[in-house]
Amino acid sequence: MKSMDASQIKQENQQYVLHSWSKQKNVNPKTISKAEGVFFWDETDNKYIDMCSQLVYLNVGHQHPKLLEEFKHIGEIPLAAPGFATASKAALARKIVKAAPSNMAKVFFTSGGAESNDHAIKMARMVTGRYKIFSRYRSYHGATFGAGNLTGESRRFEVEPGIPGFIKFDTPYLYREVVDFPSEEEATQFYLARLKNQLLYEGPQSIAAIFIEPIPGSNGVLIPPKGYLEGVRALCDEFGILMICDEVMTGFGRTGKMFAVDHFNFEPDMITFAKGVTSGYAPLGGVIVNDKVANYFDDHVLMTGLTYSGHTVCTQIGCTTLDIYQEENLIEHAAKVGEQLAKRLEQLLSFNSVGDVRYIGLFAAVELVKDKTTKQPIIEYGTDYGKDKVGLMSKFISLLSENGFYTYSHESSVIIAPPLVITEQQLNEAMDLFEKTLIQFEQQYLFTDQTLLTK
Amino acid sequence: MKSMDASQIKQENQQYVLHSWSKQKNVNPKTISKAEGVFFWDETDNKYIDMCSQLVYLNVGHQHPKLLEEFKHIGEIPLAAPGFATASKAALARKIVKAAPSNMAKVFFTSGGAESNDHAIKMARMVTGRYKIFSRYRSYHGATFGAGNLTGESRRFEVEPGIPGFIKFDTPYLYREVVDFPSEEEATQFYLARLKNQLLYEGPQSIAAIFIEPIPGSNGVLIPPKGYLEGVRALCDEFGILMICDEVMTGFGRTGKMFAVDHFNFEPDMITFAKGVTSGYAPLGGVIVNDKVANYFDDHVLMTGLTYSGHTVCTQIGCTTLDIYQEENLIEHAAKVGEQLAKRLEQLLSFNSVGDVRYIGLFAAVELVKDKTTKQPIIEYGTDYGKDKVGLMSKFISLLSENGFYTYSHESSVIIAPPLVITEQQLNEAMDLFEKTLIQFEQQYLFTDQTLLTK
Repeated sequence: MKSMDASQIKQENQQYVLHSWSKQKNVNPKTISKAEGVFFWDETDNKYIDMCSQLVYLNVGHQHPKLLEEFKHIGEIPLAAPGFATASKAALARKIVKAAPSNMAKVFFTSGGAESNDHAIKMARMVTGRYKIFSRYRSYHGATFGAGNLTGESRRFEVEPGIPGFIKFDTPYLYREVVDFPSEEEATQFYLARLKNQLLYEGPQSIAAIFIEPIPGSNGVLIPPKGYLEGVRALCDEFGILMICDEVMTGFGRTGKMFAVDHFNFEPDMITFAKGVTSGYAPLGGVIVNDKVANYFDDHVLMTGLTYSGHTVCTQIGCTTLDIYQEENLIEHAAKVGEQLAKRLEQLLSFNSVGDVRYIGLFAAVELVKDKTTKQPIIEYGTDYGKDKVGLMSKFISLLSENGFYTYSHESSVIIAPPLVITEQQLNEAMDLFEKTLIQFEQQYLFTDQTLLTK
Repeated sequence: MKSMDASQIKQENQQYVLHSWSKQKNVNPKTISKAEGVFFWDETDNKYIDMCSQLVYLNVGHQHPKLLEEFKHIGEIPLAAPGFATASKAALARKIVKAAPSNMAKVFFTSGGAESNDHAIKMARMVTGRYKIFSRYRSYHGATFGAGNLTGESRRFEVEPGIPGFIKFDTPYLYREVVDFPSEEEATQFYLARLKNQLLYEGPQSIAAIFIEPIPGSNGVLIPPKGYLEGVRALCDEFGILMICDEVMTGFGRTGKMFAVDHFNFEPDMITFAKGVTSGYAPLGGVIVNDKVANYFDDHVLMTGLTYSGHTVCTQIGCTTLDIYQEENLIEHAAKVGEQLAKRLEQLLSFNSVGDVRYIGLFAAVELVKDKTTKQPIIEYGTDYGKDKVGLMSKFISLLSENGFYTYSHESSVIIAPPLVITEQQLNEAMDLFEKTLIQFEQQYLFTDQTLLTK
């Protein structure tokens, strides 16, 4: 490949590449000229701290030396189609099963999160012989038709008219719930009672699975109230429904434990994953299934398949990534630095533009408001796609970027999810930038009434 | 990763990995210990000529030195999420657009064929504002829910109840058509008249796209009759319907031209691709769109996206693969060796068990029959999945494998699609093995009446 300078790279990207979630005439992408650990540099040598791990996948950080070394030898291993047994596929599946909850038994590999969710739906229908699929509003599960139909927000609309039998229920979102609960336990009772009613109304005998992001990611890191996920599990058990946890974002250490479900007292029937399994160094995803699901397919045909299921290069990169998590104690490290992140986030609540902060491990969201008393959001629900990006949240994200803090937002929430290798000092420096940006944002865009500016 | 011996690799694959299209208790996979060009060796040093390029993707052959070299340096390039411009994404999109029909303008990247088809459906609906999608019986488009609903055979059933608005029409399959046509032209008239009726019955104003594999692959390399694809294009133009060609198998030289559509006199609105773009060395796919579709997204949001769209490693591997096609004149080479393959296939028609042969470039199918006069197939339609693989076709594929000829079958057709680097001599040796196997097969399994054995 001829080497190109940054302006040529940009020009040819605009000319030849279709860019996601955008009007193409508005696309004006940066390039990355250099990257290391939690930092990257653009074409004009501006330095950024990557506070969203690109798209919440670069858990081991940019340009990890062990992965760069792995690529040097990866060509030596012959490629093999899914029908063959390979060392990397076996080793990675074994490592994943051993890292997962104790009831997990086998892995079906895909190339990403959306494919994983599509395949979990298919497997759930095969195993149960039922066709209805429950998932939640304020969830994002991916862009293929199955994952898209699971999705409980505006990014689903492009795959409608939808697949028959896909039903939505509410995600607990206490900050904006119409009811004001005196305790988490009472919130849990409310949501579980409503879910049970809806299961009965829909007919449990036709419901194959309930899909849940244990901590919804894109939709603002919504931490479930105490006992909620365990209660969903109990309902699944009561009605013979499979519980499937989408851990595409949360899996592999993001929350300070290997999987988000490890924070709670239940075991799902399947876990879908992607991103962290390779830290994004190669496209890989999959579905982990429990012994019950695995046993079903001993005697029944698994009627699905993908050309790149268990791709040799990708599973090899996955093995190395999982070794790095272990060798560098990254999961424990994420939990520890996460405690400092929690402190810094709680301090943000003194800002008049910060309505809510939510966090677990190194997975967090800061929800901005125009008015703290009325909780008026920065942007109204459902309006952050499909329009030119000239709204207030875009302005805040741009300001962050100008200050060297790289991340993205959804609705009125800013995602904070740095590489797990981030040090406490780097985190503090990043949060200083965040605070500085909040002050600028309030002054420049938010409060014409000077008395509202955070002091 | 600890090194494992072959028996451990197999054991752990059986214990931890879910294998496609199988009852897991029947899975007994081989391993590949060594591979080079058109050959690979299993754990007991048996040598195989890979006559299906694994899953019709390894176009440049096993362990191509230029790709192995590329992997050594690939870690040096920083990873970048889809929102960034990268050199590899730009260069690959440019190369693809320049290799594609002249009306093609931009590329949306995915990680594989199924995702590509899902995204082509979404784009077609966005561009046209219509929701119905036509595709064909005897087609295979992939395992996600969109691609699965396009699929016109039994592998669709697991994604049913289906998405509203997905309509099927017939693929020309002259060998088994209920009408016996005096000429290809008359067959074309028949199929086009029926398709036009069906478009009218469904209401063209609500039909977004017609999906077509120009040469259906998995379903037996069905060559369209003269003028058929051009006629479909004319119907699309008449009714404002987008024509989308699935070239996941046929793209990048498989048929002796860069794309299968290059054999005909029409241009589609979109082409979906995967496999050959990297020769499977990394998971990559995409949708090539024409200027009309590209222009639409200048002013309208492309409401879809994938974490690994334009993945840095995969697009870099794609660039190198496309360079190899050019440097080694592999497309022209495939066309030339394809002529010899055609000769060898025509000779097979003298076998009493060979009903039909179909071929274009290095893409071919041999359809076996129990009885040449009645055309009784080796296995009845729709029975090759969902059962234990103990049927006659499995026996034939096993015999081929024992003789060192590696490939797979679908219904009663054996797929022949070797790496494009195969030499004429290697091809002749492989076809000698095929003929030898046919003789064994007829003797051992097919004709108890000795007079039917091919002499």
